[in-house]
Amino acid sequence: MEIELKEGERLDDLHRNGFRIIQNEKLFCFGMDAVLLSGFARVKEGERVLDLGTGTGIIPILLAAKTKGEAFVGLEISRRSADMAERSVALNGIQERVSIVLGDIKKAGELFAPASFDVVTSNPPYMTQSHGLLNPDPDKAAARHEIFCTLEDVIAAAARTVRPGGRFYMVHRPFRLAEIIRLLSDYRLEPKRMRLVYPYADREPNMVLLEAVRGGRPRMTVEKPLIVYEAPGNYTDEIVELYGY
Amino acid sequence: MEIELKEGERLDDLHRNGFRIIQNEKLFCFGMDAVLLSGFARVKEGERVLDLGTGTGIIPILLAAKTKGEAFVGLEISRRSADMAERSVALNGIQERVSIVLGDIKKAGELFAPASFDVVTSNPPYMTQSHGLLNPDPDKAAARHEIFCTLEDVIAAAARTVRPGGRFYMVHRPFRLAEIIRLLSDYRLEPKRMRLVYPYADREPNMVLLEAVRGGRPRMTVEKPLIVYEAPGNYTDEIVELYGY
Repeated sequence: MEIELKEGERLDDLHRNGFRIIQNEKLFCFGMDAVLLSGFARVKEGERVLDLGTGTGIIPILLAAKTKGEAFVGLEISRRSADMAERSVALNGIQERVSIVLGDIKKAGELFAPASFDVVTSNPPYMTQSHGLLNPDPDKAAARHEIFCTLEDVIAAAARTVRPGGRFYMVHRPFRLAEIIRLLSDYRLEPKRMRLVYPYADREPNMVLLEAVRGGRPRMTVEKPLIVYEAPGNYTDEIVELYGY
Repeated sequence: MEIELKEGERLDDLHRNGFRIIQNEKLFCFGMDAVLLSGFARVKEGERVLDLGTGTGIIPILLAAKTKGEAFVGLEISRRSADMAERSVALNGIQERVSIVLGDIKKAGELFAPASFDVVTSNPPYMTQSHGLLNPDPDKAAARHEIFCTLEDVIAAAARTVRPGGRFYMVHRPFRLAEIIRLLSDYRLEPKRMRLVYPYADREPNMVLLEAVRGGRPRMTVEKPLIVYEAPGNYTDEIVELYGY
């Protein structure tokens, strides 16, 4: 299927099932975070998945390629991003499994029935409005800073839409880990699995992957470290595998 | 100074300042946890330090060797352990800087003036009473299981005895990390620094080191991984350095 690209857009190969994605560098391109989250999240056959703040749809598209989940919904507030996501879904011919909904995370409780998903995922903005400079482009700014929604809004939306016993997966920055664990706990999403992503084996981690279970009992597994580079420019085998190169 | 050892006791070299420690294998010998905590904790010149559940006094004795702290107090509920700790302090000639108090962590708020320490440390028992089998020896059991005090008792005692802006250092097991962060937060001890200890670079971590600041603002640093072995039987340089071999 051929698809018309709008000005500034490009088509990137996802190295999975021949899937491609439409992106626009001027707006926002997906990062390693999304790829790592799609590798960390566990989606079983027949499960329904909601991605909060899906951007160009990278997470539902990757999960549709990698898992046997039945239905993937991406919720996105930016009309431009949601439009790219919808065209990518059509381009990959996966409209029956993946749908994109234009809407606000803060309204997720009204847009979707309570507890109607087995899995909820999110790669939310990492910075509060007090962290560093805002990008002048509103879509880029919204992807990085908590403009349309806060961390608490994302976690509250996950807690309303995931079923009891269902899983919430998030990637975030380690410097906010204490806040994240507090908020997950406040919303009865028990942290059960965590993995820290270290750029090099001797550096501080720059990402944290978390799995929380709605109503789970307190006991968590911290997994082995995920190291990105074995040497400058050389990915470790695990990262190569995740990217599917 | 020569010291009389009781039956079953042995004298171990701490590789710091010529310090030694009296231990009894039938009771409890310090582990790598205590050594790592003594390397992780930051004690500045002139500061006062309280160690909750000090056992044979390993943490205050190591911190007295490694730092310029002014006074170290070890609180211990077991008479046998406290007795060994006191004799080790005398053996090392550091009675002016280190004192051992026989008493209950749950009574720390009555034993010590509120907010009277700059630093509080603890290497508490890791297991709740529902985790695994209790050791038949009561001292060994109390060192591993929450018999005399729970995690919350330790954190509550730290929050009462440390001054505002003062630091609480703890070593624990990663599987309890979510509970730990919740409890620290409940007691206004903000997690500010965390380091995971991995036995090997490709294994799950088996210890977590945490620094919390009383009344601190939410933003934490997760440090580079602490790897124990580079190959079976071979410590990494960092561990060799910590042990002072």
